[in-house]
Amino acid sequence: MELYQQQLTLRAFPRGFHLITDEINRCLSPIQHWNSGICQVFIQHTSASLTINENADPTVRQDFEMYFNKAVPENDPDYRHDDEGPDDMPAHIKASLMGASLIIPIRNGRLALGTWQGIYLCEHRNRGGNRKLLITAWGQ
Amino acid sequence: MELYQQQLTLRAFPRGFHLITDEINRCLSPIQHWNSGICQVFIQHTSASLTINENADPTVRQDFEMYFNKAVPENDPDYRHDDEGPDDMPAHIKASLMGASLIIPIRNGRLALGTWQGIYLCEHRNRGGNRKLLITAWGQ
Amino acid sequence: MELYQQQLTLRAFPRGFHLITDEINRCLSPIQHWNSGICQVFIQHTSASLTINENADPTVRQDFEMYFNKAVPENDPDYRHDDEGPDDMPAHIKASLMGASLIIPIRNGRLALGTWQGIYLCEHRNRGGNRKLLITAWGQ
Repeated sequence: MELYQQQLTLRAFPRGFHLITDEINRCLSPIQHWNSGICQVFIQHTSASLTINENADPTVRQDFEMYFNKAVPENDPDYRHDDEGPDDMPAHIKASLMGASLIIPIRNGRLALGTWQGIYLCEHRNRGGNRKLLITAWGQ
Repeated sequence: MELYQQQLTLRAFPRGFHLITDEINRCLSPIQHWNSGICQVFIQHTSASLTINENADPTVRQDFEMYFNKAVPENDPDYRHDDEGPDDMPAHIKASLMGASLIIPIRNGRLALGTWQGIYLCEHRNRGGNRKLLITAWGQ
Repeated sequence: MELYQQQLTLRAFPRGFHLITDEINRCLSPIQHWNSGICQVFIQHTSASLTINENADPTVRQDFEMYFNKAVPENDPDYRHDDEGPDDMPAHIKASLMGASLIIPIRNGRLALGTWQGIYLCEHRNRGGNRKLLITAWGQ
């Protein structure tokens, strides 16, 4: 079994949910000869996160942004960590609801995503800037 | 270290939370000679998900269904993705709250779940149909 | 590629969110000669969980506790699983929102966490007691 690891810096995305499946696939081209394996995508931040969801209709990603803004409201007077702006503490909470890590199986050298599955970057800050990912895959 | 991968198609479950620990264990019988390792269970869908929770009292699963229906309501007029019925967009959101992937350590050839831990299929659609899982394990 | 597995029993923490990065790092000292790899931290319970979030300001952890107590209220009369006290069923739900497992890449023998990332134990019970973790790492 081999191990492969590569860093990937994403350009700054606006606040919201964004498909990054193509960016991840490009990182995996050196291992497309693998028969089977696993890939982890890890985001090294606490106010952006990763999830897998519908890859076709852009309104799904808009509805994600709408929903999470309602579910994790800004300006709750009970927040104590509010020095970095009203979007900061909600961003931390959203990041933990989604998680910092995705694990995706590999089959025949490709991510074994379902037909409708895509990889989302979830940018929870108004100005999150570049985001650093670390991609680790193991397989044979 | 060996790598093992197997597809598993679950029969159609009704909307709700369902214990599938036995179905997963059956897939792992070829690797029960492993001393230690890891197993990933991945669901190739965006409106059903997986989680680990209490394996004994069925009312826990009923309370999960009750809670998530309140937390992610149907028929929010702000949803834009509503062509596939009122249960569709909430199903996508619930799927991301839970996640598409479980990772469970293996010890002495068995999933090292705690005493009260079981694997749930979370079926978020009214008629989700069969669900495809991909199980990948690595160990020795 | 090598596989490393170790059990870790955490002392009883009060209800809330607690940094345990140091405890996890101590378990990984036998593998600090690894160049690259992956580490899984798994909690064998259904009313406590794990997440990665901000490692510096304690008010972030206090805001997590405040937020999740609002988002998953106690004493909802619709709960059917209520024999073990008002904090029990909310604890199960919070545990699934966060998850039982963290996967963190390893680089140069250390967890490749971002600058601001720390590992949280999320104790959702009033008196959760000791919590058992199983740490599994693989790498080279």
